[in-house]
Amino acid sequence: MRILIINGPNLDILGKRETKIYGTMTMSDIEKRLKEKFSKVNMEFYQSNCEGAIIDALHKALDDSTDGVVLNPGAFTHYSYAIRDAVAALKAPVIEVHLSNVNGREEFRRESVIAPVCKGVIAGFGVRGYELAIELIIDQG
Amino acid sequence: MRILIINGPNLDILGKRETKIYGTMTMSDIEKRLKEKFSKVNMEFYQSNCEGAIIDALHKALDDSTDGVVLNPGAFTHYSYAIRDAVAALKAPVIEVHLSNVNGREEFRRESVIAPVCKGVIAGFGVRGYELAIELIIDQG
Amino acid sequence: MRILIINGPNLDILGKRETKIYGTMTMSDIEKRLKEKFSKVNMEFYQSNCEGAIIDALHKALDDSTDGVVLNPGAFTHYSYAIRDAVAALKAPVIEVHLSNVNGREEFRRESVIAPVCKGVIAGFGVRGYELAIELIIDQG
Amino acid sequence: MRILIINGPNLDILGKRETKIYGTMTMSDIEKRLKEKFSKVNMEFYQSNCEGAIIDALHKALDDSTDGVVLNPGAFTHYSYAIRDAVAALKAPVIEVHLSNVNGREEFRRESVIAPVCKGVIAGFGVRGYELAIELIIDQG
Amino acid sequence: MRILIINGPNLDILGKRETKIYGTMTMSDIEKRLKEKFSKVNMEFYQSNCEGAIIDALHKALDDSTDGVVLNPGAFTHYSYAIRDAVAALKAPVIEVHLSNVNGREEFRRESVIAPVCKGVIAGFGVRGYELAIELIIDQG
Amino acid sequence: MRILIINGPNLDILGKRETKIYGTMTMSDIEKRLKEKFSKVNMEFYQSNCEGAIIDALHKALDDSTDGVVLNPGAFTHYSYAIRDAVAALKAPVIEVHLSNVNGREEFRRESVIAPVCKGVIAGFGVRGYELAIELIIDQG
Amino acid sequence: MRILIINGPNLDILGKRETKIYGTMTMSDIEKRLKEKFSKVNMEFYQSNCEGAIIDALHKALDDSTDGVVLNPGAFTHYSYAIRDAVAALKAPVIEVHLSNVNGREEFRRESVIAPVCKGVIAGFGVRGYELAIELIIDQG
Amino acid sequence: MRILIINGPNLDILGKRETKIYGTMTMSDIEKRLKEKFSKVNMEFYQSNCEGAIIDALHKALDDSTDGVVLNPGAFTHYSYAIRDAVAALKAPVIEVHLSNVNGREEFRRESVIAPVCKGVIAGFGVRGYELAIELIIDQG
Amino acid sequence: MRILIINGPNLDILGKRETKIYGTMTMSDIEKRLKEKFSKVNMEFYQSNCEGAIIDALHKALDDSTDGVVLNPGAFTHYSYAIRDAVAALKAPVIEVHLSNVNGREEFRRESVIAPVCKGVIAGFGVRGYELAIELIIDQG
Amino acid sequence: MRILIINGPNLDILGKRETKIYGTMTMSDIEKRLKEKFSKVNMEFYQSNCEGAIIDALHKALDDSTDGVVLNPGAFTHYSYAIRDAVAALKAPVIEVHLSNVNGREEFRRESVIAPVCKGVIAGFGVRGYELAIELIIDQG
Amino acid sequence: MRILIINGPNLDILGKRETKIYGTMTMSDIEKRLKEKFSKVNMEFYQSNCEGAIIDALHKALDDSTDGVVLNPGAFTHYSYAIRDAVAALKAPVIEVHLSNVNGREEFRRESVIAPVCKGVIAGFGVRGYELAIELIIDQG
Amino acid sequence: MRILIINGPNLDILGKRETKIYGTMTMSDIEKRLKEKFSKVNMEFYQSNCEGAIIDALHKALDDSTDGVVLNPGAFTHYSYAIRDAVAALKAPVIEVHLSNVNGREEFRRESVIAPVCKGVIAGFGVRGYELAIELIIDQG
Repeated sequence: MRILIINGPNLDILGKRETKIYGTMTMSDIEKRLKEKFSKVNMEFYQSNCEGAIIDALHKALDDSTDGVVLNPGAFTHYSYAIRDAVAALKAPVIEVHLSNVNGREEFRRESVIAPVCKGVIAGFGVRGYELAIELIIDQG
Repeated sequence: MRILIINGPNLDILGKRETKIYGTMTMSDIEKRLKEKFSKVNMEFYQSNCEGAIIDALHKALDDSTDGVVLNPGAFTHYSYAIRDAVAALKAPVIEVHLSNVNGREEFRRESVIAPVCKGVIAGFGVRGYELAIELIIDQG
Repeated sequence: MRILIINGPNLDILGKRETKIYGTMTMSDIEKRLKEKFSKVNMEFYQSNCEGAIIDALHKALDDSTDGVVLNPGAFTHYSYAIRDAVAALKAPVIEVHLSNVNGREEFRRESVIAPVCKGVIAGFGVRGYELAIELIIDQG
Repeated sequence: MRILIINGPNLDILGKRETKIYGTMTMSDIEKRLKEKFSKVNMEFYQSNCEGAIIDALHKALDDSTDGVVLNPGAFTHYSYAIRDAVAALKAPVIEVHLSNVNGREEFRRESVIAPVCKGVIAGFGVRGYELAIELIIDQG
Repeated sequence: MRILIINGPNLDILGKRETKIYGTMTMSDIEKRLKEKFSKVNMEFYQSNCEGAIIDALHKALDDSTDGVVLNPGAFTHYSYAIRDAVAALKAPVIEVHLSNVNGREEFRRESVIAPVCKGVIAGFGVRGYELAIELIIDQG
Repeated sequence: MRILIINGPNLDILGKRETKIYGTMTMSDIEKRLKEKFSKVNMEFYQSNCEGAIIDALHKALDDSTDGVVLNPGAFTHYSYAIRDAVAALKAPVIEVHLSNVNGREEFRRESVIAPVCKGVIAGFGVRGYELAIELIIDQG
Repeated sequence: MRILIINGPNLDILGKRETKIYGTMTMSDIEKRLKEKFSKVNMEFYQSNCEGAIIDALHKALDDSTDGVVLNPGAFTHYSYAIRDAVAALKAPVIEVHLSNVNGREEFRRESVIAPVCKGVIAGFGVRGYELAIELIIDQG
Repeated sequence: MRILIINGPNLDILGKRETKIYGTMTMSDIEKRLKEKFSKVNMEFYQSNCEGAIIDALHKALDDSTDGVVLNPGAFTHYSYAIRDAVAALKAPVIEVHLSNVNGREEFRRESVIAPVCKGVIAGFGVRGYELAIELIIDQG
Repeated sequence: MRILIINGPNLDILGKRETKIYGTMTMSDIEKRLKEKFSKVNMEFYQSNCEGAIIDALHKALDDSTDGVVLNPGAFTHYSYAIRDAVAALKAPVIEVHLSNVNGREEFRRESVIAPVCKGVIAGFGVRGYELAIELIIDQG
Repeated sequence: MRILIINGPNLDILGKRETKIYGTMTMSDIEKRLKEKFSKVNMEFYQSNCEGAIIDALHKALDDSTDGVVLNPGAFTHYSYAIRDAVAALKAPVIEVHLSNVNGREEFRRESVIAPVCKGVIAGFGVRGYELAIELIIDQG
Repeated sequence: MRILIINGPNLDILGKRETKIYGTMTMSDIEKRLKEKFSKVNMEFYQSNCEGAIIDALHKALDDSTDGVVLNPGAFTHYSYAIRDAVAALKAPVIEVHLSNVNGREEFRRESVIAPVCKGVIAGFGVRGYELAIELIIDQG
Repeated sequence: MRILIINGPNLDILGKRETKIYGTMTMSDIEKRLKEKFSKVNMEFYQSNCEGAIIDALHKALDDSTDGVVLNPGAFTHYSYAIRDAVAALKAPVIEVHLSNVNGREEFRRESVIAPVCKGVIAGFGVRGYELAIELIIDQG
């Protein structure tokens, strides 16, 4: 079982950024925790602040050996039609995850241009959102 | 541990309704499955096609003995500011759940007026969404 | 042949309400007239000011013994996505009927969120609209 | 009794056009059927792809000898304020008819700029819509 | 003199709900205070979380023995065209009252779809708003 | 001196149409009056309900012998970008005239898509508007 | 106790202006009536058609000796962000009052840019609105 | 015969301002020209950059001795609902005049909030617009 | 091989109209050039300023002997849903062509209501656009 | 060198107004500080709560002896097209200054209708913004 | 002759992506075909999923040795104002090409923010669009 | 003292691009000038056409040794919520700078999605804007 976990812009500074909203856990803390919890799953982690690099990472899931993608597009959620197209190109399910409840923040965060072509969305549960998304992919794997 | 599971309009005919989108599992199948899986949790199930009855059910979570609410508001998601106010009145966390990926359907289904005052949202994973929401409430309970 | 005739909010006070627009005929006058005219049709009449009760009534048409529904959703026409979902769940044809020509009144009355999932719409012909809708259902019955 | 039946753009190719939506019946089939059904009514049929010709036809109903107009404005429904003005100039009732349920199709088909000045609207019932409209005019004639 | 005082959704939990905005006075405290202050007025109190029940209550004011209605529609203020129609059907004056200054809160609370057919609006003065509304009805009674 | 006076849809039935707004003077009354008043001006009158014919008439002003155009586009004012293009093609000044004060009527009548490419606009003064427009063209001729 | 009563544009011609909406009582009639009714209150009356003069008057309430302001901004209600800023600068409560029910008139009258920073709003009760506003300020004084 | 000619903001610097659009004629040139041309008419000229002063000037036309008002509201045209109210209060006809063709300039200049309550509008003809407006008032005087 | 080349409003005055944008080549120059270049293709040319005549011309392509249509709808591009319907009725491919780059001009020229039902669009290349469109039809013929 | 420094509504109460946003420095403190810092510059200070007075002040810069204008339009920033026109009339550069970062406050403060005709904008730097603006004018003087 | 052919996001996976819309031809197939067809043209091919890399590639056309650019911006078409600015900076003509008819797909694909600064647009003709664009550049080279 | 100066897309070709708007000074000219003027400040310059690289550069200011950031986001100003998030993550002040007066250009350039989380904005003063921003950071350093 192979799962890609792809994180978008500013998630590299998690733990140092607006800690009231995002907490003090870093992205490498999250990776460590996921690896411990899902030790039998082949997980690949990507993070980039560059839209193009995220698209490149998504393309890695084009081949049949990928069972699913967990995608936290960060602020790209709200305008990257290019990432949307990359997601739409995949057969493997893509689950959009957000650490915070994006619906309850600024107006612009209420629309996701990517979600319509995802399998589903999980928002508001911090690192637990990643765990649930991985479980969902394992379930159907 | 006490959890309310509240379902909105047309979820009483689940399994008989637009089965391409919603599948053939009925709401009582879902209840049965959840009771089996979470046999130690005190779960109360409510379903109503009436907005007022859903608000009444949410008010049952005002007292301190309720640990969380799983809410699938059905089509009320998109316009019931009255349910939003009822959710905002609660201290216990409310998780909005949708069987289908509402983002990928008609335009009007893309906005939730309730989600901004929820703890978070899970959409697109069928009955598994209910299970995940219950797990999240148990986690923090 | 079985036809449901479902009326929404404020149609219970027809004849007492804005008589310039709606005339002095009451809903029971209409029922009486329809029963006389279509004496061989099994017609069931429902009226409620409660959205949930209208949804419940629509669910009665889920079984195969119903040949059609005549639905005057009153003001729910303009925002009840929950009723829309209930209509979309039916196989039997649903015809939306309005006593007045809603297009020629306030701006908000110009959009029906229910009509897109109906068989068709008849508006502006008073009680005659109900008669025509019943005839159309009989035609195809 | 004199009734004008006026058809707008592309209704001349009915039966040859998007037959999934409009069926294979031609406009002359419809005329024939209406003439048989309402053999005692003096019906005049007009069809034009030209907005101006439709306005000219509507002006024929200005004199007192016309009892009503059945108008299917085709796509002009959605933008021809000039036809709207022509309808508003008439004392005889004008009934807007659509073969298909325009509400359930593309977004732009959901607004009629003409309906506000009509007597009423019938949409979604194919040729039956014409028959009902004629009956309504006869009723009040 | 007979006055109906009708309260909408979530006003049953007043005093337990968002107390920073609404204070700790309950709806029965308000009723008690109003009864003391206006001991000679026949006041009937209704509260419901159900839109339909509020419409039913408004219909009680159709007969000539009612001198006025004090209506706090809660969140229904912002979308219930059905309640609007019920208000428009009354001859007795209806005064829309809000405990808080709805204009200074979330964007969606700034529009009332009911106010256009009311006699007037009072917002932002807590229970005093009810008292003023009753006084206004008595004045003209 | 040569001036074209071009009238759009429904102006042929002036005097028979919504007489509260437009009065009982007919278009031929207006022509007669203008011819008497400006007996030395070569005036050509065109009226059509057809957008194309109005464009054709405007094209007659392309040659250098035309000193100006008085254009009442009727309801085409609000959507005919084709007429706008025809006006923009002319060197001779085009003055948009409306009998009624279009700003004070329905919302859709408040925008003219043609006015931006005209010399100027006169609205609300009945037949006097035509006279003023002709005077303005004579002034600069 | 000191209360400012500030009236905006066109309220100087009250009684001579659109009497169907505003009645025949003049602003000095209102002042007289208020002085009689609240003879113990130190009331200062300002009226101006000039936005700047109204802002100047509001600034008089900056000092601590003012207990409240009754403000009828007239048409400035709908666009004067400058008056809004002046109101927001005050500690004393400002109550927005309108003689007519502005919600039920033209579309542009439905939004108040000032109300969000007021204590509350009273609209639709003629001179009685001023009286109620003064009572509310006295209550809390 | 008494006519008020009221000019709004920045018209005092006519001739010194954006001369490509407005030309080099000053407002006193215009006054002089009008006085010469209409030597028998009692014309009063007002100009102010202050909205309130323009409202005051309009109020001078409330009495019956005024036969009409020529109003060039300058940029107030596009947002002064207060001036609109002052115009609506008058029985004497008010004609809105613009030197330039406001329709063909910036987007915000295309809407007049005052025109709906005027008798009519003349735009695009420079000083000639004032002359025509005065003629129109004389005509009906 | 049979190809229809249909040109909309104001293209008859090409070469005489806004020559900075459209150049000095006339429509008959274009026809001549195309006939020379594609001497073996049966090309039929239509031009009309009348929407209806363009629809009529499009209907000529309903029969199977037509291989494609080159359509320059002129300003009808932006509002003629009637032409859109005529295009949608055809099986033969329709290519929308514009002489100028409509995207870079006025805002209203940026939307084509016809393009969604065409095979494709070519804009900005003058007469070359027609040639390319014809080549594309020949390619697939 | 002559520079006008013009301040709009509510800047007269700076230091007494929303001190969290604006601080406790008064406008006369600012004037004093600027005079000390730029002792060789002929600075004229204007403040008014009246739109017309600000326009009058701007007109003082029409003559050639003025090198620049520093303009803080206060809330007029967001709707005063009249001030915009006055700015556009000047040849001397006008620099729009705001004490606070207007972009990060209420939605309505995000648009300036005046900025498009200014030389540039400085916002968010308190009194330093005035100093920078004066330096910029001196630079180019 | 030197032509740049620049392809945006997800065009690297052409042939593997939504083959119903885009077909099975890969980008290297397209390059090969173009090289064969235009063997005498110096063509440089760039593809990137990164907006910045596309801007870098466009900058290569700043020098005078480039005769034109064929640009398929993929999903960047709809929001990349940065690419728009890069295109606007070039003197060489840029032709926007799309494989599919973007007008007939999702709503967001109907607007190109780049097209207004291009020479022209070709959409809907697959690889043929590239060929035509190259021909157009050769024509004028 | 350490200051980052970050420039977004197309600023690398400054001096070669739309010189009417941006002048002929290049970015390295600007850097040179700033280094000369602020020789004691540790300034780091970054420029990239890639959104991700700009976010990376902003992250360099997370540590406490950075005193401020001068950010010219180029066209990213108008849609990069990802850059906005990176700015919001910083404690050091970020000043948004634009060479030209973006308010006076195309409509889309009037909104900055980044400015709301900046310290302030300077626009329209060319290279002087950078100097002022650096001075402001030094002031408070």
